[in-house]
Amino acid sequence: MAASAVKPGEEKKKVIIDTDPGIDDAMAIFVALRSPELELLGLTTIFGNVYTTLATRNALHLLEAVGRSDIPVAEGSHVTIKKATKLRIASFVHGSDGLGNQNFPPPTGKPVEQSAATFLVEQANLYPGQVTVVALGPLTNLALAIELDPSFPEKIGQIVILGGAYSVNGNVNPAAEANIFGDPEAADIVFTSGADVLAVGINITHQVVLSDADMKKLEQSDSKYARYLCKILGLYFNYHKDAYFTKGVYLHDPATLVAAVNPSLMTYTEGVVRVQTVGITRGLTVFDNTKKRYGEITAWSDKPTVKVAVTVDAPAVVEMIMQRLMMDD
Amino acid sequence: MAASAVKPGEEKKKVIIDTDPGIDDAMAIFVALRSPELELLGLTTIFGNVYTTLATRNALHLLEAVGRSDIPVAEGSHVTIKKATKLRIASFVHGSDGLGNQNFPPPTGKPVEQSAATFLVEQANLYPGQVTVVALGPLTNLALAIELDPSFPEKIGQIVILGGAYSVNGNVNPAAEANIFGDPEAADIVFTSGADVLAVGINITHQVVLSDADMKKLEQSDSKYARYLCKILGLYFNYHKDAYFTKGVYLHDPATLVAAVNPSLMTYTEGVVRVQTVGITRGLTVFDNTKKRYGEITAWSDKPTVKVAVTVDAPAVVEMIMQRLMMDD
Repeated sequence: MAASAVKPGEEKKKVIIDTDPGIDDAMAIFVALRSPELELLGLTTIFGNVYTTLATRNALHLLEAVGRSDIPVAEGSHVTIKKATKLRIASFVHGSDGLGNQNFPPPTGKPVEQSAATFLVEQANLYPGQVTVVALGPLTNLALAIELDPSFPEKIGQIVILGGAYSVNGNVNPAAEANIFGDPEAADIVFTSGADVLAVGINITHQVVLSDADMKKLEQSDSKYARYLCKILGLYFNYHKDAYFTKGVYLHDPATLVAAVNPSLMTYTEGVVRVQTVGITRGLTVFDNTKKRYGEITAWSDKPTVKVAVTVDAPAVVEMIMQRLMMDD
Repeated sequence: MAASAVKPGEEKKKVIIDTDPGIDDAMAIFVALRSPELELLGLTTIFGNVYTTLATRNALHLLEAVGRSDIPVAEGSHVTIKKATKLRIASFVHGSDGLGNQNFPPPTGKPVEQSAATFLVEQANLYPGQVTVVALGPLTNLALAIELDPSFPEKIGQIVILGGAYSVNGNVNPAAEANIFGDPEAADIVFTSGADVLAVGINITHQVVLSDADMKKLEQSDSKYARYLCKILGLYFNYHKDAYFTKGVYLHDPATLVAAVNPSLMTYTEGVVRVQTVGITRGLTVFDNTKKRYGEITAWSDKPTVKVAVTVDAPAVVEMIMQRLMMDD
């Protein structure tokens, strides 16, 4: 059993992963399944790396691939919170199937009847203050949950978001990070909702790199999780070589999952985050962490604060991810 | 004579200061007058710390106060490049007279007949490639000069801009720095004009602090420059105490002037800067200094690059400013 496993009498952390699988989503879901500290209540799906329909298919497939079809999948929104249907889909990163162009067979299972937003609200009501949502895609489902139930921000335990580029350039363009860019209006709703939000941006996840050497180790593992991931990671490595001129890959989603499992591997500062929704910096996150007293009322004034990760023990995060994925079944 | 003075045979750097005096503008103008490396061709005025009319009055007054009314002043635009007349004026920082509420007598001199933009274009044509503009306010006059003469960006030697907040919060609001916020459309024109631009943002100037102890030293100086500045600096210290909870004051304008005198006191990186002109982050500067190959064409693609200051030898900059201001007449 892992060193940081739950001690007798301690309750597991109830987690819902909102996800657009996605190669690194697959890795994050597997890390969650292999983390004894967590109880995975379900997956909710969203567009981003793929369209929502494919995200749902992939979520079901991933659970079936490792024998965990007991975990429910709730399908999320097919459009942004403003009903936009023109979506930015990162198939050039994850493959046209979202999972490294491996042509996996379709899953046999089906999503639950509820929408992702309804599922999120229901679970928050069932376990008030106890559910952590790990949001790995655009924040549409969470914004819809807030619209559906204005008390959702109070009832949800914590929302750990992979999203934003804090004091660094974005990855869609110099201003915007992909998940926030995917639905900026939804993101602004979630960031200013008053929920206990912990945001992990690409300023953090670009430090959490799976190297070629790590990949070699994964390839030597007998774990079914590692074996599966080794099939799909090739395309992700190629993308990083082409776009970033790096030899490793960024572990955006697994690093964010780790922030939910072991928050002490990062440090955080607190302040207001607003999302720009128009113009050339649409999707930009601006984090107010100054102590300055501004002369005028600003768009950040009197808004609820969130936590933003500012440093990370990257080697420890990578080690934890590797260890969980290579654990014996 | 100062250690870094011009050597025999070396030409002085021809400088025009575009300015909205302003307490720290006054200091920058005085440092320029006391820098043997520079030849001050003129001052052009702009709104910002005060309205343009008062900026012109103050520019004339400052030159007269130190016996340098030989230097021409050209009055700049009273409105933004988009003809907006609702301007943000920082009288709460500099006093309603822009110079610490000292009720100085009106100047006896007058500005030249030309507009600031015409003056800038004329000087650039007179000394092609040799004129440095040190821009200490909103960039309207420079954008107008570019409109007036599309070859201005090539003919001007360098434009050293106090403007922007690079990877840090702004000072008008969490997104925007005051000079860029004053005329974002003008700033975007200048940043993407192809001119040799060197931008000094508040990420740099917030490190260049005149302390209470420095102020004491200035007070003991017999130099007429120091004596004048000691009269007007009190209000500026009070503002900083109230807004930033600091005991010193930020030397935005003098630090930028020093970047023109001795660029080696800062380090720079090169990349494209675009200015957001709409929404809650209007006035935000986004500097693309990633090496990433983005999947899509962005608003930063194929635009000319500029230099942005990223580090500063702050003690050396403060020492240089102090030394110049306290030099014997």
